[in-house]
Amino acid sequence: MVKAPDVSTEGALSVVRLRLDVAYDGSEFSGWAAQPDRRTVAGELTAALDRLCGPVSGLTVAGRTDAGVHATGQVCHVDVAGPFDDSLIRRLAGVLPPDVRVTAANVVPDSFDARFSALSRRYEYRVTDAPSGGNPLRRHDTLPWPRPLDVAAMTAASAGLVGEHDFAAYCRRKEHGTTLRRIHRFDWRREPDGEVVVATVEADAFCQAMVRSLVGALLAVGDGRRPVDWPASLLDRPQRADEVNVVPAHGLTLVAVAYPPQEAYAARAEVTRRQRSR
Amino acid sequence: MVKAPDVSTEGALSVVRLRLDVAYDGSEFSGWAAQPDRRTVAGELTAALDRLCGPVSGLTVAGRTDAGVHATGQVCHVDVAGPFDDSLIRRLAGVLPPDVRVTAANVVPDSFDARFSALSRRYEYRVTDAPSGGNPLRRHDTLPWPRPLDVAAMTAASAGLVGEHDFAAYCRRKEHGTTLRRIHRFDWRREPDGEVVVATVEADAFCQAMVRSLVGALLAVGDGRRPVDWPASLLDRPQRADEVNVVPAHGLTLVAVAYPPQEAYAARAEVTRRQRSR
Repeated sequence: MVKAPDVSTEGALSVVRLRLDVAYDGSEFSGWAAQPDRRTVAGELTAALDRLCGPVSGLTVAGRTDAGVHATGQVCHVDVAGPFDDSLIRRLAGVLPPDVRVTAANVVPDSFDARFSALSRRYEYRVTDAPSGGNPLRRHDTLPWPRPLDVAAMTAASAGLVGEHDFAAYCRRKEHGTTLRRIHRFDWRREPDGEVVVATVEADAFCQAMVRSLVGALLAVGDGRRPVDWPASLLDRPQRADEVNVVPAHGLTLVAVAYPPQEAYAARAEVTRRQRSR
Repeated sequence: MVKAPDVSTEGALSVVRLRLDVAYDGSEFSGWAAQPDRRTVAGELTAALDRLCGPVSGLTVAGRTDAGVHATGQVCHVDVAGPFDDSLIRRLAGVLPPDVRVTAANVVPDSFDARFSALSRRYEYRVTDAPSGGNPLRRHDTLPWPRPLDVAAMTAASAGLVGEHDFAAYCRRKEHGTTLRRIHRFDWRREPDGEVVVATVEADAFCQAMVRSLVGALLAVGDGRRPVDWPASLLDRPQRADEVNVVPAHGLTLVAVAYPPQEAYAARAEVTRRQRSR
């Protein structure tokens, strides 16, 4: 639902901040962030908003997903001039390409910052160890794995990564600032069909390719090539662990971003900015 | 699991009948049935089997799906010379294109006929009435619908179609033989995400485009354009009802085919052949 915008003086609409919840199939995108001559989610979304709402500014996203990564629960904010009504989502569906959808649009206080107010991001990674290669209708968001996976071993190994650690071993070499992150949750489940294994990992934030590195390390445990204590043993490393495989992007989906209550948006943003510059 | 083939004399393998369970994304196929100069599921499957098992013959399918229709539980049979082992499914996965998968392969008695021994076929049709247009990752097998759908009204209306009826109103004009069919089950559910509505329809058999015609009639009830008793009222018609929309193929998936116990394969095939020629 889109709430009514603030009207500062009769007939003149003030600029308001919109929170947009966004879903996309990352297959045909060079990631979220706008880049010249590349098809990106931010580029498509900005073009659609420009068309429906006039020029928009300050599009800011919770999770800058890499090329090929999907989202069902991405969140961004943007400052736009009204008017809005409940038809905005349907109108966006009419002008956006079919691989991007805006699932919710809400006016939020100016203190809301999609990136810095966020408490945590939750990702899922889908893998199938079915000998057939799995359901072809889900091949765009599921990685086929050639060996059987032991979900109990992966969950046990993942537990050793939960908490605040320096994840330099799981980050790209040229990471700016700290590689200290807090993982709130990291577990694995086998879907009722028996063929798909899903990792859920939630953290305050992730450095680039971190989820795909974590999943790569855990799959090596799941198929028996590495012992259960191996992924946590890498936490001592001062830099990227080259023996960790970064799994392909197409199995990864950003499913949710969590925020504090409205009154804490600004305070949370302040804390996040301070942490990042450590 | 692939059972050991019959070995008639030492070193010489007899031809055996294989039941193959098949899944495919129908998006890029001109349907199941082999056609010259068209990409079809039967064409791809025959080419893969020829390559791995030598020339195959008599590929027969339970449900000849139309262009664009998907399957997770299609069944076919084929006569091939061995040898087979448990690696056949993985080897097929290696040579088949990624939009077709063989999920099971079992040696069956010669009395098994994928088409005529079948007791019933079950299809699902996925529709989303989300204003956003729904999850872009599922857009290949889900129809967006522009108006809210009333699941209770659709389920009530569907109940009036269950049983044995002449479905001429829901069949293509040039249907060969009888249009008498028995629907075992026809109901609708809303998925836990609240955004997707799934129809399940199971019958002894379907005439061409019948499921898509049934779904088209029921969606007209679901969005309030037709009364609940309208779909069943068409059952008296001697021919196709032009006011029924045939919904697009891409929302439709063949999910299961049911067979009797092994000793009844031949008897069931006899019954089916007799009914079809009525």
